[in-house]
Amino acid sequence: MKVIGRGVYSLTLGTPEKYTPFQLLHPKYDPEKFVSENNVLLPFKKEDIIFKQNKRGCVIEIPMNKDENFFGFGLQFYSVNHTGKRRYIKVNSDPKSDTGESHAPVPFYISTGGYGLYVDTARYVSFFCGSTAKKGASRGIMEDVKQHVEFSETALYSVKKAKEDRIFVIDIPVARGVDLYFFSGDIKTVVSNYNLFSGGGCVPPMWGLGNWYRAYGGAAQQDIVNLGEYFRNSGIPVDVLGIEPGWHSHSYSCSYKWNRQLFEEPQRMIDCLSHNNYKINLWEHLFVHTSSEIYSDIYEYAGDNEVWNGLVPDFGTEEAKRVFKDYHQENFIDRGIKGFKLDECDNSDYNSSAWSFPETTEFPSGMDGEVAHSMIGLLYQSVIEKSFRERNQRTFSQVRSSHGLAASMPFVLYSDLYDHKAFITALVNSGFSGFLWSPEIRSCHSETDLIRRLQTVVFSPQSLLNCWRIPNPPWLQVDLKKNLNNELSENREKVTKLVKKFMDLRMVLLPYLYSAFYEYFLKGIPPVRALVMDYPKDEKTYFIADEYLFGPDILVAPLLVSDMECSSSRGKREVYLPDGIWYDFFTDEKYVGGKTYQVNKDIESAPVFVKSGTLLPLAEPVLYVAEDTVFNITCKAYGADRNPAILYEDDMTTYDYEKGIYNKVTISWDGKEIQSERVGSYQEIRYKFTGVNVVI
Amino acid sequence: MKVIGRGVYSLTLGTPEKYTPFQLLHPKYDPEKFVSENNVLLPFKKEDIIFKQNKRGCVIEIPMNKDENFFGFGLQFYSVNHTGKRRYIKVNSDPKSDTGESHAPVPFYISTGGYGLYVDTARYVSFFCGSTAKKGASRGIMEDVKQHVEFSETALYSVKKAKEDRIFVIDIPVARGVDLYFFSGDIKTVVSNYNLFSGGGCVPPMWGLGNWYRAYGGAAQQDIVNLGEYFRNSGIPVDVLGIEPGWHSHSYSCSYKWNRQLFEEPQRMIDCLSHNNYKINLWEHLFVHTSSEIYSDIYEYAGDNEVWNGLVPDFGTEEAKRVFKDYHQENFIDRGIKGFKLDECDNSDYNSSAWSFPETTEFPSGMDGEVAHSMIGLLYQSVIEKSFRERNQRTFSQVRSSHGLAASMPFVLYSDLYDHKAFITALVNSGFSGFLWSPEIRSCHSETDLIRRLQTVVFSPQSLLNCWRIPNPPWLQVDLKKNLNNELSENREKVTKLVKKFMDLRMVLLPYLYSAFYEYFLKGIPPVRALVMDYPKDEKTYFIADEYLFGPDILVAPLLVSDMECSSSRGKREVYLPDGIWYDFFTDEKYVGGKTYQVNKDIESAPVFVKSGTLLPLAEPVLYVAEDTVFNITCKAYGADRNPAILYEDDMTTYDYEKGIYNKVTISWDGKEIQSERVGSYQEIRYKFTGVNVVI
Repeated sequence: MKVIGRGVYSLTLGTPEKYTPFQLLHPKYDPEKFVSENNVLLPFKKEDIIFKQNKRGCVIEIPMNKDENFFGFGLQFYSVNHTGKRRYIKVNSDPKSDTGESHAPVPFYISTGGYGLYVDTARYVSFFCGSTAKKGASRGIMEDVKQHVEFSETALYSVKKAKEDRIFVIDIPVARGVDLYFFSGDIKTVVSNYNLFSGGGCVPPMWGLGNWYRAYGGAAQQDIVNLGEYFRNSGIPVDVLGIEPGWHSHSYSCSYKWNRQLFEEPQRMIDCLSHNNYKINLWEHLFVHTSSEIYSDIYEYAGDNEVWNGLVPDFGTEEAKRVFKDYHQENFIDRGIKGFKLDECDNSDYNSSAWSFPETTEFPSGMDGEVAHSMIGLLYQSVIEKSFRERNQRTFSQVRSSHGLAASMPFVLYSDLYDHKAFITALVNSGFSGFLWSPEIRSCHSETDLIRRLQTVVFSPQSLLNCWRIPNPPWLQVDLKKNLNNELSENREKVTKLVKKFMDLRMVLLPYLYSAFYEYFLKGIPPVRALVMDYPKDEKTYFIADEYLFGPDILVAPLLVSDMECSSSRGKREVYLPDGIWYDFFTDEKYVGGKTYQVNKDIESAPVFVKSGTLLPLAEPVLYVAEDTVFNITCKAYGADRNPAILYEDDMTTYDYEKGIYNKVTISWDGKEIQSERVGSYQEIRYKFTGVNVVI
Repeated sequence: MKVIGRGVYSLTLGTPEKYTPFQLLHPKYDPEKFVSENNVLLPFKKEDIIFKQNKRGCVIEIPMNKDENFFGFGLQFYSVNHTGKRRYIKVNSDPKSDTGESHAPVPFYISTGGYGLYVDTARYVSFFCGSTAKKGASRGIMEDVKQHVEFSETALYSVKKAKEDRIFVIDIPVARGVDLYFFSGDIKTVVSNYNLFSGGGCVPPMWGLGNWYRAYGGAAQQDIVNLGEYFRNSGIPVDVLGIEPGWHSHSYSCSYKWNRQLFEEPQRMIDCLSHNNYKINLWEHLFVHTSSEIYSDIYEYAGDNEVWNGLVPDFGTEEAKRVFKDYHQENFIDRGIKGFKLDECDNSDYNSSAWSFPETTEFPSGMDGEVAHSMIGLLYQSVIEKSFRERNQRTFSQVRSSHGLAASMPFVLYSDLYDHKAFITALVNSGFSGFLWSPEIRSCHSETDLIRRLQTVVFSPQSLLNCWRIPNPPWLQVDLKKNLNNELSENREKVTKLVKKFMDLRMVLLPYLYSAFYEYFLKGIPPVRALVMDYPKDEKTYFIADEYLFGPDILVAPLLVSDMECSSSRGKREVYLPDGIWYDFFTDEKYVGGKTYQVNKDIESAPVFVKSGTLLPLAEPVLYVAEDTVFNITCKAYGADRNPAILYEDDMTTYDYEKGIYNKVTISWDGKEIQSERVGSYQEIRYKFTGVNVVI
């Protein structure tokens, strides 16, 4: 085993393949940044790892103990703890059950046994997480008579605590070998080092953390401009406006040319909105329609099958990447577009029309369709990121597929799934695998559902309303049909006020969240993460799929509205609070942790808790983030012994922070006076501190 | 291409694998029986088929036309027409979406282009049924501007009629080659020849077509005996009693030994029930528990991973097959057991506990886990079938997994899915692939739901109530909890009467259905099949997933009870009747075909229709089928020109019919007198004809 840095090791087995996430991305990592204090050893030796090649591909067996628990595997929607399960790492749009498939699966897991393992492969690899035992393992230890007492499928198939020794098996098809990357330490150390190994977490431009609104699919130029006016007039803070497929002269597949029937003067619209401090995000996918200007240039560097009558660019070739980058820079980035929504770069196995390319597709680079399905989301992100980077502009964009080593990509995942519960589970899981996920709001069952979903989305990496199906904002009418008919709701004033309250709250949290992203960049700590990551010794956190940490100090336990309860605006749920003292974010009520509470909330607030010891920086909400925005900050001090708050100051939009041009601002409060200390080379001031509120 | 018989061809590409359905089953087929009249040619030439090997396995491209439609692929639950879709032929318990996966998938499809193709592989093969086009296919033919008008996922991803040339692609992993079997002709000819090539359809013992009842999982010996008494006393016809896992001293995995706490004298119970003309079916799966008597004998011939602490026998070895066969003959078949329910021989990808063996499992025969998952259901059936065959006893049993070339297996499929609509779609699809499927009744939402499901199941290959979760029959109490508490329903008398009515109806249809199975055996015509099979030129039948033909002359269009309508006992639905005249089975009402009707039915009947020209043999219902049962038959004559009815007479229980020891009985009616003509060597009389009722 090769030591890559403190607590990070690699092991090459057999002959690895040419196209893998590592080989394609070549992440820039600095071994000095790895967060392990010492070179903690792995819980097993190289000799304990079994490697076999067979005609299906290759197989790896990793030693395991009966009491190990496994987390990770990318953006999983149906469970957090994968112990005893099979995880099938296959890129797929909106899977309907807990198979491991996802539009953003990752061959990386973390064990409570003190290690994590990233398997560098673009194949549809399967992980059998202690679901099986070797022949004979049960001999002599299993009882003879076993009376059935409960008669249900659940009882028959329930996971039972193993008495026999189990094995952890990794089944990699096709490949004759693979590079393994091991990370030693507890869950948080492992995840941090995985993210640092991936190049460190991205830092979005500050505007990217504001509120996003994707406009109606049928919107024309003037509709978008009017929407911008509406937000500024109504005082609802919005930073980013997204434009859906209708802007293309042809989409599905894409022409990447403005539809001049709807957008007669796109540059005027861009300039007008930019002047109003909006950032514009354009929808696209990578399938190049025959009418596109890049069709001929891409033709030679495309796979041998069409998708929706369009070419599939081979981003394994430098030529295809260059054509895409040049076109996007010249036509969009240099004209004021700030980001893109990269749709359908996953696969369509769970969609009835099978629109994507088969695994049999051959690409000029030598990639086959299986590898391409795994890698195309990553490569597409990297092409777009580079297009902005060359202009020293950060983007914060959206993407529908991702894979291994993606932490440095400034993209947020979304999908066509739409279950609020599954969205929250994805949020919990996203932090294990270097992902950002938005539990975006689309249509809602009811006004209560809208607000409950909003309460989740403002505590997520991207506060996004995706209103592509409705011409009016959902707070004016949640009913799809009525919204399409412009019949507005009688409650609209009340609902608008609530929506503004929570969208304002997002702006209040901006500096705090920006700081969490800096921790992601500098130390690899995910801004949104599972409770188990901060409380690895608390076994009660091992199965929690509906609570998460938002930044270092806030615990969020979203309320769901089930279909049956549409009309009730009160909600209640169980919330487990780990050891320590906690305070209700909205009411300041004090809770003693280490137990589960029944929490009851009306629509004005949600179960959100702040850790005792926190000095929480809260900004006076702005309507949008401009180049020269300065945040007025009041701190809230929770509990008796407050740790200092850390904020980061920079130009908010360029990559200069990577060169160290930022300030680390340490705010402390001794009970009397607020003190801020700045370290760094950035010249301007972003944060002004105005006072402290105390909660004990 | 090699000619196997009239309309049947084989083509070997590359080097096929050792373990495939054909190589493992070696079906006995007689080329002379193939139903094609002439040697109809395939719609393409050998040279038009593209074969490629790559490092993932091998790829085949079959020519296709834009207007071709594709059916088949085994027991699919979510659609009937697979055009434009990908079908992933992977054995899996209860899949949740329309991916092609199933616990009984088959690499066989039928095209409306005049052919069918069986791909002889045990690999997880994918068929891309015209979902993709070659690069450049759309160049020049796709319009430039495309305005979006509807904004929904459905609209975006809807399957559009192709303007460009599409390709049909088959992606076989691992294998370096494969044998293809082509069948030319229309859909019915193709399916018939596929079934004949598989050895011809099975003929169940007559008792197997009676009603089945699987008893409560917690039932003891006396409970089963009492259940038998209950049916005989109440006049509800039942032929088969099934006993669930509790009979094993250990199950999950299995000991195959009686649990003496519940079954103190199993032989007495068997004798007592047999004396009362019941046939007993025992639940089991193939995972051999450490406490089983065959554990040591199987050990050497088992895969290298355990399932539920048990061994996985390698039925690719003669030794494992022999151990299983000998043990079953000695301990069960020779002691009066008439069949088995072979559970969990599929795979667990869609179950949260991943109980089955990984694809990495190695078997002594050289099979790997992937091949074993595809083949184990087939092989298990063949071991059990042989165990009975060596005693010259037919069985009619149950199995949870199957695959290619299975038509001759006397097993009916079931699953853990439980949606009535999906069950009916499976019934429609079963006939394309040599399968029998039971839309079994388990728990029900309501009494109406129970009756509606019963109305489907009595018109299916196996009329089965699976009451393993409830101690009392569902007609006494449909509510699970109340049933467990022995709280009986107030409506039970009324519901029992309805249940008896439809279970009697099953017995009325027995000779008709038995005859349909003979057609399955002799001519390969499936007893239950999609409308498109008999009306291949009627494009309206191409997407019908909720109507089917039951035998040659009856069309069934089951009524569903959705969750929301639990309480209503009336039901209505649309029914499409193909060209011709049809009569309501229950009311004799006349319908002119070629159109869609709104059919409204109270709980006393269901939408079932008989084709004009039918002379339908209806038996006086018996309580059970005994060795010496003789059926008293009244025919019902529908319409003006009646075709003769055909029935088959044999000993009803042995394999002697395969040696030709049966009679073909032709019944005709000239409007005045009923005439029956017997041809064959069977000596006894099974059917007495008592009269004719006329419907015009």
